[in-house]
Amino acid sequence: LKEENNMPGNSFGNLYQITSFGESHGAGVGVVIDGCPAGIEISLEDIQVELDRRRPGQSVVTTDRDEPDQVEILSGISEGITLGSPIAMLIRNKDQRSQDYGNLAKVYRPSHADFTYEQKYGRRAVAGGGRSSARETVARIMAGAIARKILIQNGIEIVASVKQIHEITAELDVDSFTRDNVEANIVRCADPVAAEKMIELVKRMKQDGNSVGGVITVVARNVPVGLGEPVYDRLEAELAKAMLSINATKGFELVAVLAELV
Amino acid sequence: LKEENNMPGNSFGNLYQITSFGESHGAGVGVVIDGCPAGIEISLEDIQVELDRRRPGQSVVTTDRDEPDQVEILSGISEGITLGSPIAMLIRNKDQRSQDYGNLAKVYRPSHADFTYEQKYGRRAVAGGGRSSARETVARIMAGAIARKILIQNGIEIVASVKQIHEITAELDVDSFTRDNVEANIVRCADPVAAEKMIELVKRMKQDGNSVGGVITVVARNVPVGLGEPVYDRLEAELAKAMLSINATKGFELVAVLAELV
Amino acid sequence: LKEENNMPGNSFGNLYQITSFGESHGAGVGVVIDGCPAGIEISLEDIQVELDRRRPGQSVVTTDRDEPDQVEILSGISEGITLGSPIAMLIRNKDQRSQDYGNLAKVYRPSHADFTYEQKYGRRAVAGGGRSSARETVARIMAGAIARKILIQNGIEIVASVKQIHEITAELDVDSFTRDNVEANIVRCADPVAAEKMIELVKRMKQDGNSVGGVITVVARNVPVGLGEPVYDRLEAELAKAMLSINATKGFELVAVLAELV
Amino acid sequence: LKEENNMPGNSFGNLYQITSFGESHGAGVGVVIDGCPAGIEISLEDIQVELDRRRPGQSVVTTDRDEPDQVEILSGISEGITLGSPIAMLIRNKDQRSQDYGNLAKVYRPSHADFTYEQKYGRRAVAGGGRSSARETVARIMAGAIARKILIQNGIEIVASVKQIHEITAELDVDSFTRDNVEANIVRCADPVAAEKMIELVKRMKQDGNSVGGVITVVARNVPVGLGEPVYDRLEAELAKAMLSINATKGFELVAVLAELV
Repeated sequence: LKEENNMPGNSFGNLYQITSFGESHGAGVGVVIDGCPAGIEISLEDIQVELDRRRPGQSVVTTDRDEPDQVEILSGISEGITLGSPIAMLIRNKDQRSQDYGNLAKVYRPSHADFTYEQKYGRRAVAGGGRSSARETVARIMAGAIARKILIQNGIEIVASVKQIHEITAELDVDSFTRDNVEANIVRCADPVAAEKMIELVKRMKQDGNSVGGVITVVARNVPVGLGEPVYDRLEAELAKAMLSINATKGFELVAVLAELV
Repeated sequence: LKEENNMPGNSFGNLYQITSFGESHGAGVGVVIDGCPAGIEISLEDIQVELDRRRPGQSVVTTDRDEPDQVEILSGISEGITLGSPIAMLIRNKDQRSQDYGNLAKVYRPSHADFTYEQKYGRRAVAGGGRSSARETVARIMAGAIARKILIQNGIEIVASVKQIHEITAELDVDSFTRDNVEANIVRCADPVAAEKMIELVKRMKQDGNSVGGVITVVARNVPVGLGEPVYDRLEAELAKAMLSINATKGFELVAVLAELV
Repeated sequence: LKEENNMPGNSFGNLYQITSFGESHGAGVGVVIDGCPAGIEISLEDIQVELDRRRPGQSVVTTDRDEPDQVEILSGISEGITLGSPIAMLIRNKDQRSQDYGNLAKVYRPSHADFTYEQKYGRRAVAGGGRSSARETVARIMAGAIARKILIQNGIEIVASVKQIHEITAELDVDSFTRDNVEANIVRCADPVAAEKMIELVKRMKQDGNSVGGVITVVARNVPVGLGEPVYDRLEAELAKAMLSINATKGFELVAVLAELV
Repeated sequence: LKEENNMPGNSFGNLYQITSFGESHGAGVGVVIDGCPAGIEISLEDIQVELDRRRPGQSVVTTDRDEPDQVEILSGISEGITLGSPIAMLIRNKDQRSQDYGNLAKVYRPSHADFTYEQKYGRRAVAGGGRSSARETVARIMAGAIARKILIQNGIEIVASVKQIHEITAELDVDSFTRDNVEANIVRCADPVAAEKMIELVKRMKQDGNSVGGVITVVARNVPVGLGEPVYDRLEAELAKAMLSINATKGFELVAVLAELV
């Protein structure tokens, strides 16, 4: 088989193409966006607000590591306006508590990519997972913050809520729930009753030194008819790929496409 | 948004790249494989046997249309050996019962792409769905038949069984079920007890003029550690995309990665 | 080095993407176009007229092989209108005079890819060069005929003339020469005086069992400002790649970009 | 035509893929390499030595701007060894003499991309050309320094010499000239006699406020037979594209492929 020990796999997208780089405990994590239109207003704040939503250590239900990620724009934006050239953004790593991981040099963490990376590359980053760390998602958040701004300008709204944690399932009205509903609690579930129970569950699991899985519902509103390309690049195929490429995500389901014919 | 009325979307894969073409009621459906190694033995029979497995009209649980698909190899294989050049294969359309679809000129079929195609391209194939027809999957089968042969030569085995139809769920031992088990009945479920019930259910649904959904379990055995590329092209992301690109497939779940450390 | 014995290399283009297939002495040569807009009027005649211009054996200055190439449209066009789905076109091979090449089984033709193909793939097509034959260019001509029609509808005109054969150089007024000027003689040089001399030279060379090189000038008129993408996909880089990918083409020069500011 | 005001064009390569970013007068210029094998030894010095060769202001025959480019490795290399993850490298801009360019706000520099960029993106970087600056080549040099190291480890040697400046042509023995020969003078021509004349010419041109064009000869030694992919990605096509994508490069010629059959 002509699979090599390394081939490109760190880019995503055709027209708005992102390339992600960086390890959890190197100099930093970043992203290059190629294909972003010129003339879009983007402030540091637009990106920072999304990074702050992701920040570990912000509440009792997340990991304790504190990562106050500060974005620097390296290229592609001048005086708050996109130039049409590649937009590179960088977040320096700070909380590099490598000593915390010292005992991992001799074991593979269960359900992590430690073993796979070592087999594939002949080496692995003992500290923090290196490239396999979920910290890579900051690259997606930076690129997503700009994409989100462009989408909103075109009338498209995307909201996501936790739908389920372990066996607690939220009631979500997909037509009406808002980002404000989601931001109203620390598990980010638009159903406040379920949210209470989820928070209790996560706290209890954490006390036991355990973690727990869940399901997220994403709703995209005002999507134009015919978005995506048949056959291999149809919209649900691209979405499935994007979702499954996130660390620890194991399933994707297209629940419904609702079109109102007026 | 810079989405156009048409962009390429009919190719899949990086090293073994396939490009699919053809409508359900035009001259035919075909595929071009680029990147297949030279020197692989491929017979018409290798491909035909897989096409015959797909053939509609072969049993009471499938559609009644009879499509005896006959593959022609247009390029890339000479005297039963791959040349290293692109392998093009074509299946001529035969059962073009366009008159059957006449009444569809004025309506959109529910859960079909009729409306979407008309909006996207300004026209649609009334007869048989055109490019949106599930007949496109013959392209994947032809390309898959050759891929399968290469994989088998490298010790990799892939088997699939129907896991669930409506509310009937099969018991599958993922370590041991074989293609022969699957071929033993017309719903292709490796659990013979569940298979009986499924066949009964499908027959009843068909009598009612109804259809019914299901779930398929795919097992890949002896896959090398480290296949796929982090981060966006990780194996589960590529698999999810491939599966969701099939007509009427709406979900994907990576159930388990089992590694035996010996 | 992770170069394998075969990787994809038979596709070109991003938005209007072509995939070429076929050997000189197999079933035929064809092309798949992915990304062609829906709603374009294309007749068989549009494509055939360009194929006839290429046809070997049409005059005393070309090869003697007679290849009356007849195009068949396999998909993507219905009732003379593009559908938006991939356009596949096929030309069956006819003049497969394999016996003519029998003596080549033991030697490598100078300046041909015989040796390279044998080293790369472990085999080679003795008869007619197989995939390395210049016959592959019919795929480009079919795809180019449709591209040309789209360009003309958008006001863009592309004309080409032989500029030089061996040491005979034509005088060309790049602002004004037309396809009719070029078609007026069998070497397709818009300078009739130089054309005479070129025809004489080629005839003489042919009598001696020799061949001779040349230079072609291509002019594109009414090209929009800003076509192409910085930095690696700038227009001249893409043109250079396209030109150098043609058999026996060894050089490319961007002579001038003329813009009239009105 | 479905050409948009911006599409990706800042990546090059399939297996060893580079993405370039940065403007001449923003925060810096950088590159991300995706697909570099794990386990390669790379020092900062390996990259810096190549950057120093490019550095403007190093001699009387180059531009007077002094750009002491210092590379920072952001990811992909740990303790001097490549990890297999994307290698990101950054050079901060220093000599941002924007005031020098103030008078250019009202005019377009001849033979520069000023006009094109303004038409394409609706704006342009007045200072230093922004993305259209030749400073972008530092991205290629950083990526090339690592590629060069891998190639040398595989026995492949690539050397380049100035072949011609205006009408002064060097005598080069392509089989034997070395990088040391090239480094022996400030125009980097392996023929010392021609080099003298070239230096005189460039000095004279510079005094006149003029510049002058030239030709470079590149020799690649010990290249494996069969490198590159037919048909569109053949080696000379990829080389032509790479060369023509460099600022102010207008031609490419494949002079000879020499194979010694032993």
